[in-house]
Amino acid sequence: MDGTAQTKGRGGTRTLDVMSAIRAKVAGRALSAGDRLPSIRSLAATMSVSPSTVVEAYDRLAAEGLIRARRGSGFYVSPTAAPPLALAEAEPRRDREVDPFWVSRQSLDTDTAVPKPGCGWLPPDWMPEEALRRATRALARTEASVLTNYGSTSGSLTLRRLLLARLAEDGIEAAINQLMLTGSGTQATDLICRFLLRPGDTVLVDDPCYFNFRALLRAHQVRIVSVSYTPSGPDIARFEQILGSEKPRLYITNSALHNPTGATISLQSAHRLLTAAASHDLTIIEDDIFGDFEPERSPRLAALDGLNRVIRIGSFSKTLSASVRCGYIAARPDWIEHLVDLQVATSFGGPSPVASEIIANVLAGGSYRKHMDELRQRLTRTRRDIARKLQALSIEPWLMPRGGFFLWCRLAGGQDATQVARAALNEDVVLAPGNVFSVSQTSQNFMRFNVTHMNEPRIWDVLRRALMAAPA
Amino acid sequence: MDGTAQTKGRGGTRTLDVMSAIRAKVAGRALSAGDRLPSIRSLAATMSVSPSTVVEAYDRLAAEGLIRARRGSGFYVSPTAAPPLALAEAEPRRDREVDPFWVSRQSLDTDTAVPKPGCGWLPPDWMPEEALRRATRALARTEASVLTNYGSTSGSLTLRRLLLARLAEDGIEAAINQLMLTGSGTQATDLICRFLLRPGDTVLVDDPCYFNFRALLRAHQVRIVSVSYTPSGPDIARFEQILGSEKPRLYITNSALHNPTGATISLQSAHRLLTAAASHDLTIIEDDIFGDFEPERSPRLAALDGLNRVIRIGSFSKTLSASVRCGYIAARPDWIEHLVDLQVATSFGGPSPVASEIIANVLAGGSYRKHMDELRQRLTRTRRDIARKLQALSIEPWLMPRGGFFLWCRLAGGQDATQVARAALNEDVVLAPGNVFSVSQTSQNFMRFNVTHMNEPRIWDVLRRALMAAPA
Repeated sequence: MDGTAQTKGRGGTRTLDVMSAIRAKVAGRALSAGDRLPSIRSLAATMSVSPSTVVEAYDRLAAEGLIRARRGSGFYVSPTAAPPLALAEAEPRRDREVDPFWVSRQSLDTDTAVPKPGCGWLPPDWMPEEALRRATRALARTEASVLTNYGSTSGSLTLRRLLLARLAEDGIEAAINQLMLTGSGTQATDLICRFLLRPGDTVLVDDPCYFNFRALLRAHQVRIVSVSYTPSGPDIARFEQILGSEKPRLYITNSALHNPTGATISLQSAHRLLTAAASHDLTIIEDDIFGDFEPERSPRLAALDGLNRVIRIGSFSKTLSASVRCGYIAARPDWIEHLVDLQVATSFGGPSPVASEIIANVLAGGSYRKHMDELRQRLTRTRRDIARKLQALSIEPWLMPRGGFFLWCRLAGGQDATQVARAALNEDVVLAPGNVFSVSQTSQNFMRFNVTHMNEPRIWDVLRRALMAAPA
Repeated sequence: MDGTAQTKGRGGTRTLDVMSAIRAKVAGRALSAGDRLPSIRSLAATMSVSPSTVVEAYDRLAAEGLIRARRGSGFYVSPTAAPPLALAEAEPRRDREVDPFWVSRQSLDTDTAVPKPGCGWLPPDWMPEEALRRATRALARTEASVLTNYGSTSGSLTLRRLLLARLAEDGIEAAINQLMLTGSGTQATDLICRFLLRPGDTVLVDDPCYFNFRALLRAHQVRIVSVSYTPSGPDIARFEQILGSEKPRLYITNSALHNPTGATISLQSAHRLLTAAASHDLTIIEDDIFGDFEPERSPRLAALDGLNRVIRIGSFSKTLSASVRCGYIAARPDWIEHLVDLQVATSFGGPSPVASEIIANVLAGGSYRKHMDELRQRLTRTRRDIARKLQALSIEPWLMPRGGFFLWCRLAGGQDATQVARAALNEDVVLAPGNVFSVSQTSQNFMRFNVTHMNEPRIWDVLRRALMAAPA
């Protein structure tokens, strides 16, 4: 990735625009291998840029291998420039578009020393470290087959039994053949989408919603529609209308401690939502990944529905370990059977058996409940402290969540959150600007803060400067 | 899954046929939610079965929830009977079709005590158990962030550096941004297929080929064509023809120790193959999963091609551990960038960081090379011994492989391998019949044997009886 230096000025941005336009045409198969590119003069006119900008863009695309110059006859798409599924532009890291991948790539790949109030996980010292070490030592002593063999196609029976007991606490009575383990919570959602969706289908999400739902749905080439999220769940009147007019095949939501807002659906909304879903044959994925952070259990769609049209998914990445990757799906037994086949076809199984062994060991031990109790108390204090400090900067929480580590906040000064996030990144602080969560792109004045990553005083200085610098 | 007892007789099979036909119609969206099913009388006539067979099939589908009876007006597809991507029929385990899922489901899910000469992995006592235990103990002592955090989006830098050195030994010079870790070898293939393919594209595989390539490609809804595999690689003349006539977008192969045959591509075939690929803009996935079993390195397509149109994938499931799941992709840097985005969107990352930590620890230790040396010697002896015993039953290896644990054998008595496998399964021995590997379904007299799972004397008695019972 060279050429970064050239992209700084205004001319550089135009070069990137031309490159993006060509890449998009190749990705969308409007230009195929061997096709001739527009002449420099004509593209310069079309895009209102100078010919030298187009020349630079073509040269850089040629250096990347996407296009090739033929002497005296212009530029052509390379035979190897496949028309692949380009989910986002492959820009140098810092320059990349603030798209649904922005937060994940920045927060996963930036050096661990960089503070990340935009990230979606807890710091190591908030996790059950001792229980994890104990479980790993136990793993080192277990029978050889656990350390060397593939697991069963539905995943560890021990862990699935532990999960059934936990589902029962949520009011979800499921049989063992209604539960499978997956490589991660995201992979659970992805498998279900592969099973249920076809390109062109319509999928409904909340607005705002977890940004990776948008990235995932892009990969499925479906049409995304959104319903605004209120403090008691999705706007139900609007939800009912959308079901009638847009006919979505699937709705994906978090019902306990919704990401990013921290809101929780009310019992009444849950009932109306399921009634509407039944009359329009809508399937629902209820992602319960933050459920364990609730002080007391809220209504679950899966419990009301009895795992009929609601598919419950979850993982342990937020409460136990994101390094020990494992998710699960609870659904109708016939769907689970097909989903297991699909997971064999596409991953030859679910999580690493060593990973599910560690998780089962931690969950079975008595310390996990105690850890979660302490964690919830610590989070209550931290949410309150951070909310106060944010308010001093005119950053107002949209609501005070009952649990979890996110505060979804409005920049009361009216600043553009994307600009604030870009300015903060230039000072090595990763933030999560509102519009990465918004299908309708109406959250430009919102920001999601992870209260557990805001201890460092420098963050607050950077935030203050970034707010000052951003246009209101 | 009740009703198993009823499916034993001939009538039961017909019931299953009717159920399959209806399921297929729903899966293919020929029948949608709310549609009325054919009347019992008319379907009985169409399928040449008795009305009572249709009644039983409808009753069982209703019990499963796929269809519903309405009093006095027949059967209807349930509103919840989505039209999902059904890769295989959801039959009771023993009754399921001998399709590409047959071997994987039977060998992954059958009790560990059941001998599995059909499976695709080594027994625990052939794996580097001590090195794995040592690596797991080291993991229990490592810094907390490794145990609790998500990894970087491309995967552990340590493991990627170790892999680069190993690729260089194969003559593949790659930069660090040409390499990413994935959840498994299968997931590596799946990601690439998602990136490159669209429904309706054509994909070329070997005949025979690894059965899960077929299962995976079904999930991508592509057209599969095949080229027969010879002892020196794919039939090159045929390969060239197919590229011209069928215009496949992608070719998936193992070039070292091909699964199931154990053959290795010759240097000359590799060169001709790549020349043909270049003139037809074909992308190639070279799955190197058995490469470490070779006594000395054979030509690699990726080395000849320089990771231009060849994508190299691999994993550690066969040589190190299938429980510690991790695969990798080496390819052009711009493709890796997109594939990393796609993996974030669909899995929020690659392997469990705890898994890549264990693998890096084993690979970095000196014992792995020694383990592989011993393993290769042990396998040479075992292949020879088992080949001799199989020949005594008129089961002839198609060739003696240079390495690995498979023998691809012809049943010289002309028996149908699927029948033999079914008979063996009734006596609790899992075999791998030829046609699960064959797109053209021309391997009905072949069987793949895993020589490391054939120690138990009972296997040979069962095999003898199954051969006697099967029609020639």
